[in-house]
Amino acid sequence: MADSTGKAEYFVGLDLGGTKILAGVFKHSLECIGTAKLSTKSQRGVEPVIERVARCVQDAVDEADLTLKQIAAVGIGAPGAVDFAEGRVIFAPNMEGWKDVPLKKALEKQLGVPVFVENDGNIAALGVHVAELKAKPKHLIGIFVGTGIGGGIIINGDLYSGFNHTAGEIGHMILDVNGPKCGCGNKGCFEALASRTAIFQQIKAGVKDGQKTLLTEMLGADLSDLRSGDLRKAIRRGDKFVDKVVEGAAEYIGIGIATLVNVLGPEVVVLGGGVMEALADEMMSVIIETANDYAMPGTMKGVEIVASKLGDNAGITGGAVLARRESK
Amino acid sequence: MADSTGKAEYFVGLDLGGTKILAGVFKHSLECIGTAKLSTKSQRGVEPVIERVARCVQDAVDEADLTLKQIAAVGIGAPGAVDFAEGRVIFAPNMEGWKDVPLKKALEKQLGVPVFVENDGNIAALGVHVAELKAKPKHLIGIFVGTGIGGGIIINGDLYSGFNHTAGEIGHMILDVNGPKCGCGNKGCFEALASRTAIFQQIKAGVKDGQKTLLTEMLGADLSDLRSGDLRKAIRRGDKFVDKVVEGAAEYIGIGIATLVNVLGPEVVVLGGGVMEALADEMMSVIIETANDYAMPGTMKGVEIVASKLGDNAGITGGAVLARRESK
Repeated sequence: MADSTGKAEYFVGLDLGGTKILAGVFKHSLECIGTAKLSTKSQRGVEPVIERVARCVQDAVDEADLTLKQIAAVGIGAPGAVDFAEGRVIFAPNMEGWKDVPLKKALEKQLGVPVFVENDGNIAALGVHVAELKAKPKHLIGIFVGTGIGGGIIINGDLYSGFNHTAGEIGHMILDVNGPKCGCGNKGCFEALASRTAIFQQIKAGVKDGQKTLLTEMLGADLSDLRSGDLRKAIRRGDKFVDKVVEGAAEYIGIGIATLVNVLGPEVVVLGGGVMEALADEMMSVIIETANDYAMPGTMKGVEIVASKLGDNAGITGGAVLARRESK
Repeated sequence: MADSTGKAEYFVGLDLGGTKILAGVFKHSLECIGTAKLSTKSQRGVEPVIERVARCVQDAVDEADLTLKQIAAVGIGAPGAVDFAEGRVIFAPNMEGWKDVPLKKALEKQLGVPVFVENDGNIAALGVHVAELKAKPKHLIGIFVGTGIGGGIIINGDLYSGFNHTAGEIGHMILDVNGPKCGCGNKGCFEALASRTAIFQQIKAGVKDGQKTLLTEMLGADLSDLRSGDLRKAIRRGDKFVDKVVEGAAEYIGIGIATLVNVLGPEVVVLGGGVMEALADEMMSVIIETANDYAMPGTMKGVEIVASKLGDNAGITGGAVLARRESK
């Protein structure tokens, strides 16, 4: 599959997460021709993680039967506030020691290829907007529900990142000022109410209180190694408790969307991330109904709320879109 | 003060509210040279209100010693969702019967002058951005705290109104999903927690429960004709109850700002409206402190939170800015 001319016409998109690193090699058409995955091991410190990122890029390139010389650019989504111009991660709350890390510079030195870094929510929204929706919606909000809740905003067809390059932190909209504590220190943030972490906490608390659920049959009483897919299995087998918890999270996602629609008036709201990938069939109708209930009259007219089909690949696809755009 | 050549080089800005109509005549430099004010009397129906709007424009023009022939355009801020291209008020919740009203067309017929209509929060934000801040901030959010809470968003130097022209409905961000009921039917909207209406309700409920306050000395036990300025007077005379209620509202405004900063990353947040005009000295330090407490690390760096000096004139000034821009 290698280009015999050796021309640098492929792009690498990379999704740097708190637990795993995912890289993909893409053609100019955004067709993915090879991927690689490594665990992040952020507890080892900043330098080792940067080395793992470089290795993951190389693994994906090798998987696609290419060499680094054939890569025009690498686009990375990083979890936290990112200075795009400098390619610097200003602050990544879920990664140990990641404060003011010159990721672009370090990787360019190791790989010899231009590297561009953006916030992971922004990158995933960019991937969905360009690759899945063909850049048609003028204003779009991407909501990615996983361990936390990330977001990305497209305004007038472009990624919008605001004054401090921190816009799109929708997981920390406050929806219930007296609600459960969030990792950020506040109470009742969107991600403290509707992320996978929030759902799992509610399920574990219920089990501790004597709630009956098929999950304990499936995984044992301590629910170790619980995953989003297990929730889907339990619901499909008629587990009312899990159904209720997941429905509650879907309602909060609907309320979060209503707030975002009231403030930003997007044309499309797209949902992605691990929780949506596993549970879209179970959650989407409740999400859409609740969003319509809570949004102001007139604001939802013609607005589409859809689940992305890119799943876990939204981040690497967006990274490739960024790399392609920046190496023009 | 009339231009002896009779050239149409003045602009009228008009603020159409649920209780009053305010109009101002402006020079190209945005200096205001005459104003007029009428009550709205929205209970009389749509047509009579449109006639009052036309009369208010004429009164302001007369006040400035001009004639309508010297007016290049009229810019109007209307309360609700507005179709700017058509100059149509789609829906105005606080005005009886205002659904799909062709305000531009009706007024142009009556006045013989080009008329442009925008949402009132958008218009006020535009007025503050251009006239007060000299259009310097690239991204700005205007928050106007009065009977309700209105908003306007400037992105990349331009008014942003989104897909359905409804963006900026920040009064209906949900901050406390189990909170007090809002006029829109939901619970815990920003304006149900921090508007003048919310503050007055809390004070009246407290008095009913036997709370002691100087306000009953000042206004009688039923607190008829209570105004924002009375709260300031009571606080300055040491009224702890009023102080506490106003501080609570200021905290919610800070939480609302934190949510907006997390999502939108503005450079400047500007506060206006009747409540801020009366109580900025009492509220601003609590607002700023709370916003900094609740916003994500890094998002508030260099972000200014300021009280507008335009006060009640933000709307008419913004109307003039719109009229000037559109008649270029």
